[in-house]
Amino acid sequence: MLKFYTYYDYHNENLENFAFNALLQEKNSNTIGYYHLPENSLGLTERLKGIDKNFEKIAVIGIGGSSLGTKAVYRLLKDNYNSVKEIVFLENTDPIELKNHFSKIDKNKTLFLVISKSGTTIETISIFKAAIDYFKLDLGKDNIIVITDSDSSLEKFAHKFSIDVFNIPENVGGRFSVFSAVGIVPLYLAGFDVEKILKGAASFLDSFFSKKEWHLIQKAAFLYEKSRFYRMNVVFSYSSLLDEFNKWYVQLWGESLGKINKKGQRVGLTPIGLLGSIDQHSFLQLLIEGPRDKTVTFIKVRNFENSLKIPNISLPYLETTDFVNGYTFNELINAQCDATKESVIRSGIDVDEIVLEKLNEENVGMLLVYYELLTSAVGALFEINTYNQPGVELGKKILKTKFNS
Amino acid sequence: MLKFYTYYDYHNENLENFAFNALLQEKNSNTIGYYHLPENSLGLTERLKGIDKNFEKIAVIGIGGSSLGTKAVYRLLKDNYNSVKEIVFLENTDPIELKNHFSKIDKNKTLFLVISKSGTTIETISIFKAAIDYFKLDLGKDNIIVITDSDSSLEKFAHKFSIDVFNIPENVGGRFSVFSAVGIVPLYLAGFDVEKILKGAASFLDSFFSKKEWHLIQKAAFLYEKSRFYRMNVVFSYSSLLDEFNKWYVQLWGESLGKINKKGQRVGLTPIGLLGSIDQHSFLQLLIEGPRDKTVTFIKVRNFENSLKIPNISLPYLETTDFVNGYTFNELINAQCDATKESVIRSGIDVDEIVLEKLNEENVGMLLVYYELLTSAVGALFEINTYNQPGVELGKKILKTKFNS
Repeated sequence: MLKFYTYYDYHNENLENFAFNALLQEKNSNTIGYYHLPENSLGLTERLKGIDKNFEKIAVIGIGGSSLGTKAVYRLLKDNYNSVKEIVFLENTDPIELKNHFSKIDKNKTLFLVISKSGTTIETISIFKAAIDYFKLDLGKDNIIVITDSDSSLEKFAHKFSIDVFNIPENVGGRFSVFSAVGIVPLYLAGFDVEKILKGAASFLDSFFSKKEWHLIQKAAFLYEKSRFYRMNVVFSYSSLLDEFNKWYVQLWGESLGKINKKGQRVGLTPIGLLGSIDQHSFLQLLIEGPRDKTVTFIKVRNFENSLKIPNISLPYLETTDFVNGYTFNELINAQCDATKESVIRSGIDVDEIVLEKLNEENVGMLLVYYELLTSAVGALFEINTYNQPGVELGKKILKTKFNS
Repeated sequence: MLKFYTYYDYHNENLENFAFNALLQEKNSNTIGYYHLPENSLGLTERLKGIDKNFEKIAVIGIGGSSLGTKAVYRLLKDNYNSVKEIVFLENTDPIELKNHFSKIDKNKTLFLVISKSGTTIETISIFKAAIDYFKLDLGKDNIIVITDSDSSLEKFAHKFSIDVFNIPENVGGRFSVFSAVGIVPLYLAGFDVEKILKGAASFLDSFFSKKEWHLIQKAAFLYEKSRFYRMNVVFSYSSLLDEFNKWYVQLWGESLGKINKKGQRVGLTPIGLLGSIDQHSFLQLLIEGPRDKTVTFIKVRNFENSLKIPNISLPYLETTDFVNGYTFNELINAQCDATKESVIRSGIDVDEIVLEKLNEENVGMLLVYYELLTSAVGALFEINTYNQPGVELGKKILKTKFNS
C-alpha cells in the first residue's frame, strides 16, 4: 500500500479534468504505450522462463532510460532477496569506472544485456565494442541478449549473429520504459518477482483511471499552476535505498517537462532528489531559509525489514543523545522525516508526502507508475510533448564533428 | 594545474573589490579559519605518523560536513593508488544500509573514526552506540579515534576512555573542514599523500590572495548579480569519480548561501550536481529547452591515467557509431563534454569551465579550495553569514518531541 498526504489546499476542477482527460485519451488511443505495459509485459515471463540461466552476474550495457529504472528497482528490492544475482551497470564513458567494472566481470559467468531503444546510442555501442575486445566475446556463442526497438540497426545486428532480441514497444519512450523488456528482462533474470512489480503498477493504473487517485491529478494541477513561482520540485526520500529512484525521477521529470511549447515559450520544472537523513545536513538550510521557489515531497518507508536498534547505552557526557535509546533505526529515520517535514511546513513551503508501508514489489511498482502518471499529467497541462527530447540532438551532432578532423 | 574558462562577459569592479576585500578581512582577522588550514594541517602528519597502522579498513562515523569532503577526495583519488585502505562511511540512519555496512566490517581489522564537530550529532552518536553494541567494542582498548571541537562533550567522553582525539579549529565550520583533521586524519591513515593535497590547496590560496585568480571573484560577482534570474547553479562534472565531489559542492553551496539576510529577505542559490555523460540522457533536455534560470559550470579531466580504447571494430548495421573507433574513452568523454558545452552555450546559457589537467592530489586540493573561496565570495556579496546554519535547528527540536511520549 501507498498512502498520500497533502499539506496544502489547492483545487482547480477545470485543470484537473483537463489533465485527467488528456491521459485517458493518450491511453485509449494507444498513442502512448506505457499505460499498457504492466499488463502486456506479464507475457514476457513465459519467454524468459526458457532462457538459459547459467550465469552469476548480469552486465547491463545501457544509459539513461535504458538503465535508470532497472537500477532504481534493483537498489530498492535487492536486500529483500537472499539470492538475487548481481547486476552491474556499464553506462558511463568514464574510463576509470569502466575499467574497474570490467576487471570484476568473469565473462564465462556473465550475461551481457545490450539495451538501446534507438539502437545506436554512442555510449552503449562504444562500451559494447570495448567489452567485445576486452572479454574476447564470441558474438555467436557467448551470453548476450539485446533489447531494442523493432527494426533498429541493433536488432538487425543481433539477428545476423543469432543473438536473442527483446523489443521495446514503439510507443514507449526510454524514460517510461521500466515496465517494458528494458526493466523486466534484467530484473526477471536476476531473480526478482517481476509479476508482483507489474501487478502493483497495474493495480495503481486501474485505480487511477477509475478516478480513485484524484490526489495525483490535484497535485499535477497544483504544480502546473504554481510553476512560475515554484520552479523546483524536491523529492526528499528517507532511505539510502531510494537514491537510484531519485535519479530515475530526475530524468523522468526533467527530460519530460523541460520543453519549448507551441507558443515558443520555455517551460519546465527542475527536479531535485534528496536523501534523508543525510541531506538534512546539506540542503535543508537552503530549503528552510532560502527563496520560496520549491515544493517538497517527502517519501517514507513505514516498515523496513530490519530491527537494528539504538542500544540502551548511555555514554558519559553524551547523555543528551539518549532520548533515542531503545528505539529502532527504523523509528529514528521516520521520526527524522516527520520532524523535518514539520519544520519545512512551518517555514511556509507547500509539502506533500508519500508513505510506502514497506519496500516490496507491489509498492515499488506503484511508486514508479505514480511518478509516470504525475509527469504525464503535468506535461498535459503545459501542453507540451512530454515524450520527446529534441533538445539533446544538437550536442549529438556537434559530437560527430569532434572526430572528423 | 587547473584551468578556468569563461564563456560570458561580465565585469563589475565594485562588486569584485567588495568581495575580495571581505575575504581578505575574514582571513586576516582569523574570524574564519579555513583559509589557514592547508598550511596549519601540515603539522597533523607528525602526530599521525605515530599512530598504530594495524588495521585494514577505516569506518568513518560522521554525517554532512564530517563525511562529504573525505568521501569526495577518497572517490577522486583512490584509483591512483595501488594499496590505499578502504574507507567505509557510516552516515545515514537507514537501517538496511547500516546493517549491510556492519556486516562487512571485521572489528579487529578496522579503525573506527567518530567525527562530529558539535559532538552530539544524533546520527553519529546513535550509529556509534549501535557499533559499540554490534561489535562489542571495548572503549578503552579497541581501535577508535575521535575528531571533534575542543571541549565538546564528545571530547570529554573520549578523554574518559583514553581515546585519541583530534580537534577541529573552532573557527572552521563543518562544510569548510575538509582540510582540517576531519578530512586529513582519515585520508592520511588510509594511505593518501595528504601533504600534496594540502600543498595544492595552499598554493591556490596564495595565488588567490595575490589577486592572480581574479576570475574567481569575477564569477562570484556575476553569480550574485544574476541571482534573481539564475537561481540554480549546475555543476556538470564529466567523470563518475566526481559524483561525491558534486555532493560536497551541493552541501557547501546550498547550506552556505541559503539564508535570511539582515533585511529579512530570503536569499540563496540552488546547487545542482550532474554527471557526464550520464546526465546528457537525463537533465540536458531541461537545460537546453527549459526556463533560463540556471548557470552551468563544466568540470573536465584532461588526462585520465587510463588508455581504454573504443576498439576498431565495425559491427554490421552499426557502422554509424564507428566515428569514435580507435579513440580512447578519455577522448570520447571529453569530446562529449565539449559538444554538450557548445550546445548549452548556443542555447543561450551562461557557461564556464574548469579543467583539471589530471586527477592528482594537488589538483583535487585546488578544486576544493576554489569552491570554498567561491562560496565565501558569493556569501560576502549577499551580506549573509556564510558559515552558520540556523535553519536546521527547528527540525532538531521537533525531533526530540517525537521521543518524549
